[in-house]
Amino acid sequence: MNQCILLKSVLHQGKVVDILIENNRFKKIAESIEPPLGATVISCKDKAILPPFYNAHTHAAMTLFRGYADDMPLMRWLSEYIWPLEGKLDAEAIEAGTRLAILEMIKSGTVFFSDMYWFREASIKPVEEMGVRAAIGVTFAEVLANDAAPNFKFLRDHYKDYSDRVQLAVMPHAIYTVGEKLLRECADIAEELDLKFHIHLAETEGEETRSLTSTQGKSPVRYLESLGVLSPRVIAAHAIHVSAEDIALLREKNVTVVHNPASNMKLSSGIFPMPGMLRAGVKIALGTDGAASNNNLDMRESMKFATLLAKVAYQDPELLPAASIFDMATVNGAQAYGIDAGVIAEGKLADAILLDLNNERFVPNYNLISNWVYSADSRAIATVICNGKILMQNGYVEGEEEIIAHAKETVARLLRL
Amino acid sequence: MNQCILLKSVLHQGKVVDILIENNRFKKIAESIEPPLGATVISCKDKAILPPFYNAHTHAAMTLFRGYADDMPLMRWLSEYIWPLEGKLDAEAIEAGTRLAILEMIKSGTVFFSDMYWFREASIKPVEEMGVRAAIGVTFAEVLANDAAPNFKFLRDHYKDYSDRVQLAVMPHAIYTVGEKLLRECADIAEELDLKFHIHLAETEGEETRSLTSTQGKSPVRYLESLGVLSPRVIAAHAIHVSAEDIALLREKNVTVVHNPASNMKLSSGIFPMPGMLRAGVKIALGTDGAASNNNLDMRESMKFATLLAKVAYQDPELLPAASIFDMATVNGAQAYGIDAGVIAEGKLADAILLDLNNERFVPNYNLISNWVYSADSRAIATVICNGKILMQNGYVEGEEEIIAHAKETVARLLRL
Repeated sequence: MNQCILLKSVLHQGKVVDILIENNRFKKIAESIEPPLGATVISCKDKAILPPFYNAHTHAAMTLFRGYADDMPLMRWLSEYIWPLEGKLDAEAIEAGTRLAILEMIKSGTVFFSDMYWFREASIKPVEEMGVRAAIGVTFAEVLANDAAPNFKFLRDHYKDYSDRVQLAVMPHAIYTVGEKLLRECADIAEELDLKFHIHLAETEGEETRSLTSTQGKSPVRYLESLGVLSPRVIAAHAIHVSAEDIALLREKNVTVVHNPASNMKLSSGIFPMPGMLRAGVKIALGTDGAASNNNLDMRESMKFATLLAKVAYQDPELLPAASIFDMATVNGAQAYGIDAGVIAEGKLADAILLDLNNERFVPNYNLISNWVYSADSRAIATVICNGKILMQNGYVEGEEEIIAHAKETVARLLRL
Repeated sequence: MNQCILLKSVLHQGKVVDILIENNRFKKIAESIEPPLGATVISCKDKAILPPFYNAHTHAAMTLFRGYADDMPLMRWLSEYIWPLEGKLDAEAIEAGTRLAILEMIKSGTVFFSDMYWFREASIKPVEEMGVRAAIGVTFAEVLANDAAPNFKFLRDHYKDYSDRVQLAVMPHAIYTVGEKLLRECADIAEELDLKFHIHLAETEGEETRSLTSTQGKSPVRYLESLGVLSPRVIAAHAIHVSAEDIALLREKNVTVVHNPASNMKLSSGIFPMPGMLRAGVKIALGTDGAASNNNLDMRESMKFATLLAKVAYQDPELLPAASIFDMATVNGAQAYGIDAGVIAEGKLADAILLDLNNERFVPNYNLISNWVYSADSRAIATVICNGKILMQNGYVEGEEEIIAHAKETVARLLRL
């Protein structure tokens, strides 16, 4: 029998309607819908429905390092704090950290994340169990590990093993940690298996300088292009230190770039060239980056950071209006990862959040999207739905106490090692 | 009989202690305290206590304009949207809007606000009733109203009329809306009655340019100094467009400046000169500005905006660490307005928030202040205490449903006018 959820009297695009979810898709949106036999009926009085967030770049298990070290330069932060603690991570810790991250994401309205990290199977398990979506990276970093062959074998053996909520993705870490030959091989296997190719790109000035000197004057973007790697399946995180020519190339090759405003600001990496990207028509999605450099996974907060940073940096209060950054945080992220979701419409995958319009941040409610981007916080989220299943209701996620307790135990264990 | 509250087993500066509040002050902080007869005992297991926020610059009733108009230049925003709607405001609307603002502030951990607006008595009433603290402006703007004489009379007649939570303050709007003579008179009456003097200062490039041309080359700060207005009782909002000489002058005269990062970014007003202010040792407090230009009154969020903006704008990830911006948002604001609070210590006024350490944003908890500044949101606030009274418990504020309903009715009425 089909599983049905009927959302009664929910505010959708300015009108109060009923919305029927059948299995994992929105079946019908109409003024009044009779509940099918056996349907779960949810009263949505004073609730608005919106698409949830698709977090296009993070490192989920790094929630375990939240607040471990702040307010210092990148290299000191990495070498003195993050790397030594990262060296102690095992599959059990990764699973506990990923579970904590997914809990935080559900609580803040996110149903998908793109995860570049280690011990992929330990990350996939909580994704499958907790009901969210993810692109889980098979991560390559030659400077750290000589595991390209087993990684390729893993991709070939397992890329079809998981539920329709989980996709493997090919994730070479960056151009300064993965060599030319391996970058090409990563692009080839992504093409062969039809997977996404996700990479850090042009995040820091140092990366740009190093690229120019070590590749006979090529910028990071131009270098990837020279390898034949750029394509619509490439999703590039950061893309801060790019020229107008680089931006034109990203557009020409239909690359999606992922803006991570909070991390870029906290680490002083630089300011994303929003006007140039918008003018060129580059596809832009939004990410939080990892909790170690943000220090949360809150996409709502990142929307506000993105638009306010653009406005002040480019002295233009009209730049990146609320509706534009909202699209980047929702439908653009879903599209980048090939997920048929990110809008509330008949036929689309049933991913949604319900917002409490009696939360004071939504009063008055001249403009719902403005209130969501600029005013609200996660306290306004009542319900989270992913793939037709309710993951959070009345602010509660099944098993949240155990997830918190286990994360605390895991951190205590790591610090003892 | 003394009213006592005993907070049992609360995390305070890294230790689990008991904290006794007697009447409106912290009486004792110790490992174990026996509850006095008739004391209210609150179990604080897995809770941390911190000072709440002191919002040093806002326009409370402008919550009624939240999201009414966004993403446009300041003058168009003011003249086409805000001013026409503001013209319809009456005392009843101001009271409803201020009540909504206070609800939002309590829910986000703020117990004090400095309010520059109109219909001061309509703002004072909800402050008195809802239990928070405020500096309520008697606002001067010659270009809008010729009410200096009745304003001065009001100040003289009423400055001692209110509870110990409410102070009147002299608030000339800005140097471009109040003339030289009236600015001096405002400074004089502030001195005479020992009140604070609060003004918008050097917010926009336009204000700076106008000042230079209309005052024979004086910057806004230098102009105020030439009038003899600057003193330790002056609290200047924004102070963005200032020179090194201006900053030295602000320090020399012991002026407090109020940084409003979210508003400055959203309106593209400019970037606060944090390094110069810190080097000079200027006193800095934090504000949200009004909900029309932010669009919330969330001081936690504004802390993160302040420090991340400073880090990226001045390319220094070590700038303004979490503990520094936290002090600006708490004790600095309290001190600027002469309130003996902002730290949790014996003898201080009993203002506090209790944070839920089982909220996932506080896991792990290597550094409580880092988690509060960079990771959490208002969902983590369990309890808010002001002047020894509990204003919010388990996330609930007495009467919140009525406040929301009344604000909605008020907005509907204004739009019909």
